[in-house]
Amino acid sequence: MQTPDDGARARRPEPGTADTVVLDVDGTLVDSVYHHVWAWQHAFAEVGVDVPLWQVHRAIGMGGDRLVAAVAGDAVERGVGDRLREVHDEAYERVVRTVRPLPGAEDLVTTLLEQGWRVGVASSGTREQTATALELLPDAHRLDAVVAGPDVDTTKPAADIARLCVERAGGSAGLLVGDTVWDVRTAGALGGACLGVLTGGFSEAELLDAGAFAVVGSAEDVPAALHDLAPHHRGAVTPSTREVPRA
Amino acid sequence: MQTPDDGARARRPEPGTADTVVLDVDGTLVDSVYHHVWAWQHAFAEVGVDVPLWQVHRAIGMGGDRLVAAVAGDAVERGVGDRLREVHDEAYERVVRTVRPLPGAEDLVTTLLEQGWRVGVASSGTREQTATALELLPDAHRLDAVVAGPDVDTTKPAADIARLCVERAGGSAGLLVGDTVWDVRTAGALGGACLGVLTGGFSEAELLDAGAFAVVGSAEDVPAALHDLAPHHRGAVTPSTREVPRA
Repeated sequence: MQTPDDGARARRPEPGTADTVVLDVDGTLVDSVYHHVWAWQHAFAEVGVDVPLWQVHRAIGMGGDRLVAAVAGDAVERGVGDRLREVHDEAYERVVRTVRPLPGAEDLVTTLLEQGWRVGVASSGTREQTATALELLPDAHRLDAVVAGPDVDTTKPAADIARLCVERAGGSAGLLVGDTVWDVRTAGALGGACLGVLTGGFSEAELLDAGAFAVVGSAEDVPAALHDLAPHHRGAVTPSTREVPRA
Repeated sequence: MQTPDDGARARRPEPGTADTVVLDVDGTLVDSVYHHVWAWQHAFAEVGVDVPLWQVHRAIGMGGDRLVAAVAGDAVERGVGDRLREVHDEAYERVVRTVRPLPGAEDLVTTLLEQGWRVGVASSGTREQTATALELLPDAHRLDAVVAGPDVDTTKPAADIARLCVERAGGSAGLLVGDTVWDVRTAGALGGACLGVLTGGFSEAELLDAGAFAVVGSAEDVPAALHDLAPHHRGAVTPSTREVPRA
């Protein structure tokens, strides 16, 4: 039976249409979305701006340069945007030691490399936040590319960050894995597909409605969901023929 | 056009089937859901139990006596359940001063009383947490009933807490307003309907799929959504003929 918004949902991509998996970080690899919500709450409280926290939560994953205006309006962004980001970053820093990897994230890069993908991460966070998150993943040194918010002029949901990630990974077409509608829209802007995970607290319906071609529980379930789409199934790239750069 | 899960969704109740609005507190009247997630994260980290935070978020709104087993399993509940609740309550206490009322919550009780409803709150929180939350609402002294988790043996999603609320409010049938699927299930267990609000961070689809008859943005939109169902429309109870107890 069809549902009214089937039209808005993406079809499963054809095998061979992508060679690079672009992984989101917060909420996809590490369990930091609620830490970011907490840090933004702290920041908004400090400048006396009232913002319902569920709206902050739903804005996590777009760049911090966009989040303030998106949840509190342009006037707040113009007035105290930089101060808010400063307080957020300081507050996040204070709780970052309690961030844990999400189920299945610790060996996800290795498993995807074994499936023949090029693998990169593209995070809207700062370089430092992204590096700290990747320290939780034993195989992060095997990543083909790491791109953080400051590496591009325009963060998610613009395509720039994902495009640069694919380029740095030496790939030609990206498939995104992310937990937010911003990841899904970034994939759309890139002309690629997005697999959703539930670990950021967006619901399955929200991710499907945004255009994810499928939604799985967590990083743990990603390799199975990408297995049939992976390059080793089309024989284009095999792990033995490619060099994995060590960061 | 029908969707596959229309069968699971509740129909809009008939006017006159309820005389009492039972309001949830956390995530419905005050913006405290993410504070509770933070406090639970703190507690689970302290005892070294790894739980993805989106699952903690989705469990907020059931009683704390149920949450630990629901997200971490029976063994953790048996081993450190009481300690976890203790650390959660202490941690929540440290951040409670930053909890704010949600949009429209500050005069919701008054507006519903004017529509002819009896109005109570039924929270899974402790008596102290519930009282502290209600201090943020200028018209909370007009509530017909206040019921907190410890007032009943079995918390949400069992019907007990809502049933006691309707009884204390002097009503005969309740209609619930809440932000979580646990509120919706509590309404179902009571044999009543539930109006969902998005302010707790559950999505519209999750609340509708659980059986909410409708979902609105926030407390601000509740009076309009309940207007046609309100007692003054059936002439059974009018504000002028009932006594509003002052707490």
